[in-house]
Amino acid sequence: MSAHAGYMDYAATTPVDPRVVDAMVPFLTERFGNPNSLYAAGRDAYRALEDARERVAALIGADAPGEVIFTSGGTEGDNAALVGTMARLAPGGGGHLIVSSYEHHAVLEPAQWLGKQGHEVSYVAPRSDGFVHAEDVAAQMRPNTKLVSVMHGNNEIGTVNDVAAIAAIAHASGALMHTDAAQTLGKVPFDVNRLGVDLASFSGHKIYAPKGTGVLYLRRGTKFEPMLKGGGQESKRRSGTQNVAGAVAFATALELIVADMPAESVRLAGLRDRLVLGVTTRLENTEPSVSEGERLPHIASLLIKGVEGEAMLLQLDNKGIAVSTGSACSSGSLEPSHVLLSIGCPPEIAHGSLRLSLGRFTTESDVDTFLEVLPPIVERLRSMSPVYARMFGAG
Amino acid sequence: MSAHAGYMDYAATTPVDPRVVDAMVPFLTERFGNPNSLYAAGRDAYRALEDARERVAALIGADAPGEVIFTSGGTEGDNAALVGTMARLAPGGGGHLIVSSYEHHAVLEPAQWLGKQGHEVSYVAPRSDGFVHAEDVAAQMRPNTKLVSVMHGNNEIGTVNDVAAIAAIAHASGALMHTDAAQTLGKVPFDVNRLGVDLASFSGHKIYAPKGTGVLYLRRGTKFEPMLKGGGQESKRRSGTQNVAGAVAFATALELIVADMPAESVRLAGLRDRLVLGVTTRLENTEPSVSEGERLPHIASLLIKGVEGEAMLLQLDNKGIAVSTGSACSSGSLEPSHVLLSIGCPPEIAHGSLRLSLGRFTTESDVDTFLEVLPPIVERLRSMSPVYARMFGAG
Repeated sequence: MSAHAGYMDYAATTPVDPRVVDAMVPFLTERFGNPNSLYAAGRDAYRALEDARERVAALIGADAPGEVIFTSGGTEGDNAALVGTMARLAPGGGGHLIVSSYEHHAVLEPAQWLGKQGHEVSYVAPRSDGFVHAEDVAAQMRPNTKLVSVMHGNNEIGTVNDVAAIAAIAHASGALMHTDAAQTLGKVPFDVNRLGVDLASFSGHKIYAPKGTGVLYLRRGTKFEPMLKGGGQESKRRSGTQNVAGAVAFATALELIVADMPAESVRLAGLRDRLVLGVTTRLENTEPSVSEGERLPHIASLLIKGVEGEAMLLQLDNKGIAVSTGSACSSGSLEPSHVLLSIGCPPEIAHGSLRLSLGRFTTESDVDTFLEVLPPIVERLRSMSPVYARMFGAG
Repeated sequence: MSAHAGYMDYAATTPVDPRVVDAMVPFLTERFGNPNSLYAAGRDAYRALEDARERVAALIGADAPGEVIFTSGGTEGDNAALVGTMARLAPGGGGHLIVSSYEHHAVLEPAQWLGKQGHEVSYVAPRSDGFVHAEDVAAQMRPNTKLVSVMHGNNEIGTVNDVAAIAAIAHASGALMHTDAAQTLGKVPFDVNRLGVDLASFSGHKIYAPKGTGVLYLRRGTKFEPMLKGGGQESKRRSGTQNVAGAVAFATALELIVADMPAESVRLAGLRDRLVLGVTTRLENTEPSVSEGERLPHIASLLIKGVEGEAMLLQLDNKGIAVSTGSACSSGSLEPSHVLLSIGCPPEIAHGSLRLSLGRFTTESDVDTFLEVLPPIVERLRSMSPVYARMFGAG
C-alpha cells in the first residue's frame, strides 16, 4: 500500500517528491550561501539559483531565464501580477481590468482591491460548460483595458481555458494577458509563447515541491512595479534573499513532472474517468460538474445531490480517504463554491460537490476503495436528509 | 575543522541547523497536508502550524499566538508592516511616517513608495555613535504621524537601539511602533511587551532556519490591511497556503537559538572583541565603526582605511574566508554603505569597511586564521593604493 493511500486531494497540495528533497537539502545545509554575496559560498548559491532559473525558463518555453522570478507561491505571484502591472499602466487609477469570476481568490481579492483604488474591474463569467469564452472577454474590452487575467485550468472543476484565444483578444486592444497556471503546470503542456501570455503564476506545492515556493513568469519588457521592495533581488522585481533551496526544489520538481507528463496524464485521466463513471453508475442523482472540452487529467468534480459535501468529507475521512468539497484554501467555509455557482450550479447542489484530485501516488486501488466506500456513505446521509427527501421524494 | 570554517558572514545568512532540517523534513514528505483542509492530513498539518505559532509567540513574549503571522521572510514582513498599517490608518494618503535613515532597504524602499502614494516620510538619522536617539525621533513627530519604524539591531554596525524608548515616544502621540528585528532575534533578548512594539519583523535565515521563512508580529487589535490577498489564511492577514515545514523550522530554530543565547552571546562577544582588538593592534589606521553602547554580540564592523572593501573581500575569499563589506542584500553594488554614511563616516572610509559576523559554527581558530591572513592582504593592497598614499603619506 502506498504511503499516501487514500489521499485524493492533490489539487490542494502534494507531498514533496523524495528526489526533490534530496536535491534541495544540500542548499539548506552545506551549500547555504547567500546568492547575493560575492565570495565562494555566495557564488555557489548564485550559480544554483541561476541554474534553477534556466531550467524553469526552458520548461515553460520562456525566451530568457530573466523572465522567471522566484516567489513565495501562487498567491504572491497572482497578487504581484495584478497589482504590479496596474500600478505601472494606470498609476493614478482609472485603468480597466478584466478577470473571470471563477478565478482563485488570490486573483479575485487583489482585483477587488484594485477596484477600491480607483480602477474599473469587469468580471467575465464562465459559461455553463465550465469555460471562459474568448468572445465573452472581447465583449468586455474597453479603450482603457490594461490587463486581462483568466486562469489556465480551474482548480475545482478542471476545465482548461483557451488562454491563447483570450490573450489574442487582450493583445488586439493593447492589454496585457496574465494567467494563473497553478493547477495546469506539469499537468497539461504549458508554453508561454504558445499561450501568448505576458505574465503567468505558478505554485511549487502543486507540483511536488515545497509549500512557500513559486514562480512568476514576466515577459521581457513588460511594465511591472515590484510588490516586495527592498534589496533589489531578482533583477529589482522581487526583493528579499532568494530561497535557493526552494528554487532548486521547484526546478527539480518541474523537470520530473514534465518528463512524466505524457504517460502520467493518460494514466490519471483514466483513473479520473473511472471515478466519474463509477460514482455516476453506482449512485443515482449524481453527475460530473462538467463533461465536455479540454479538462485537467487529475481533477474529477462530482455533484452528489441532496448531501452536504462536508458531511461526506468527514465520513470519507473516517475511512482514510482525503477529498475536498471545493477550494481547500478557505478552511471551514460553508459558503457554496463560487466556482460552481459561476457555472450556474444552484447553491443547494453546489453544497453537495466533491472534488477528487489525483496524483503521482494515486493507484487503481485508491480508486477502487473510493468506489466501494462512497455509496454506503451517500445512501446513509441521504436517508437522513430532509433536503434529499424534498428534492427527490425519497426518505 | 568545522564544515563552515572561514565563514564569517552569519549576518548575511546562516546554514540551516541539522536539528532544524530533521524537524522540518517530515512536513515536506509524510506529513504534507494542507493545513486548511478538513481531513486528517490537513488537521495534522494545522496542529503542527499552530504549535509552531504558539512556540514562536511564547519566545517573543507575545500575548497570544494569533499575534504571530508566518511570512516568506524579513523583506515581506517589513513591507507588510509599513504598507499594511499606513493603508488602514491613512487610507487616502496624507499620513506621516518616520523611519531611521539606516534601516534595511526592505524598510527604506516601502517608505519611499509610501511617499509617492501621498504620505509624508521623515528620515531620522542615527548619531555618530551609531544609535537612533529617542529625542531625535520625538523632534520629528507630527500630529498626523501614524507609524514609527526603527530597527532593533543594525545589520552592518551592530548597534542595538533603545526601541522601548522610541516606542514610548510613538505611543505618546498615538502612532504605532514597528521594528525590524531580523538581526536581533536570538542574539539579544527580545520581548514585544518589554520593547512595547506593535509590529516586528523577523527572518528565518538569520537564525539557522531556511531562506524563505519569516514572521511578522502584529499586536492584537492593530489596524492592518494584508499585503497578500486571497484565500484568507493566517486569520485573513496573509493569504497563501502556509509553509508548514518552514513554520516548524522557524519555531525549532528559534527555540534552539534562544536556549543557547546566554552562553553563546558571551562566547560570540568575546570572539568579536578579539577580532576588533586583533585587527586594530596589528594594523595601523584601522578602527571599529562603533565602540560604545549596546551592540550585537556577533557583528564586528571595521574601517580599514585606504583599502577597497571589495578587494579585501576577494583576497580573503582566496584564503577561504567569507566576509561582507556591507549589506549582502544588494549584490555587486559599489555604492558605499548607506549605514556608514548615515553615522558620518566619509565615503572614502566607508569604501574600506569590513563586516565580520560570527555564529554557531565560528571557532577561535577562525578568528586566529583571520587575524593571520588579513594583515598581509591589507599591507599589500595599501602598498599599491594611491588613496592610501594620499591619505597617510605612505607608499
